[in-house]
Amino acid sequence: MRLAEYTDYTLRVLMYCAANRQRLVTIAEMAESYGLSKNHLMKVVNDLARQGLLETTRGRGGGVRLVQEPSAIRIGDVVRASETDFRLVECFDMATNSCTLTATCRMRHLLDAALLAYFKELDSATLADIVGQAPAKAGRGAPGRGGRAVIPIRAAAGQGQRGRPATR
Amino acid sequence: MRLAEYTDYTLRVLMYCAANRQRLVTIAEMAESYGLSKNHLMKVVNDLARQGLLETTRGRGGGVRLVQEPSAIRIGDVVRASETDFRLVECFDMATNSCTLTATCRMRHLLDAALLAYFKELDSATLADIVGQAPAKAGRGAPGRGGRAVIPIRAAAGQGQRGRPATR
Repeated sequence: MRLAEYTDYTLRVLMYCAANRQRLVTIAEMAESYGLSKNHLMKVVNDLARQGLLETTRGRGGGVRLVQEPSAIRIGDVVRASETDFRLVECFDMATNSCTLTATCRMRHLLDAALLAYFKELDSATLADIVGQAPAKAGRGAPGRGGRAVIPIRAAAGQGQRGRPATR
Repeated sequence: MRLAEYTDYTLRVLMYCAANRQRLVTIAEMAESYGLSKNHLMKVVNDLARQGLLETTRGRGGGVRLVQEPSAIRIGDVVRASETDFRLVECFDMATNSCTLTATCRMRHLLDAALLAYFKELDSATLADIVGQAPAKAGRGAPGRGGRAVIPIRAAAGQGQRGRPATR
């Protein structure tokens, strides 16, 4: 049981942008900071821009920035939008389902309920809670409530050095 | 986000055995009923036998049966034992983790809490609740509480026809 790597990268891009709200960040610096491929992150950034979470500016001095307040971005919503496969077991996909128990089996309802509980927990926190830029929400399950954390970001190596578009 | 197919098969084997407690069942009939490979189910049965949930009898007339009461088998425990990968995001695996945010990031705690909520839901139901052989538990999230379901099992085609070991 795991999330797609794509979701992992999506969360990291949002966290990086939230931790650096005072400036535009580049895909190149995020890729270097996380040790990930620029191509992967470019797709992530484009998807987040399409969802209205990020804004990208092309050209020299351009980059990526969060459009919405981190406190308005629920982690559950981010994961829901990023994950494409919630087929926990075969019968979740009625097109290919061949299980003979489907008509009366209660397993699917139980797994549905468990998934709901999972997302209820993720919905209890926002991007601001995760990067520690706002007091954590006081609700159940909000991690590290009341505390603040400073996220160490590596120096943006190479930023602006080669005059290529900042979203490279 | 999905469970391993292995977990899907594991749950189905247990459900089949629970729905047919009055007799030994064979791997061949389960494979035919579900349209799954006998080899896959043999591995599942062996693992469940090792965990003390199933007992297998070899030879003609042999087969597989549940050792424990369905009402004593929590679905959460079955899934925990069956799933091998709970690496929701990279930082869950400290051996390969390269994320620079790890020290102060709260994402892992949030995902841990969500996983806990997921399993709390699965732990609210037993195998008996799922196959409808006992009144469903009254706890939160118990599916179909108070109802009963009859699981239709296809005729065990070929069972005992060829004189081969029943666990074939």
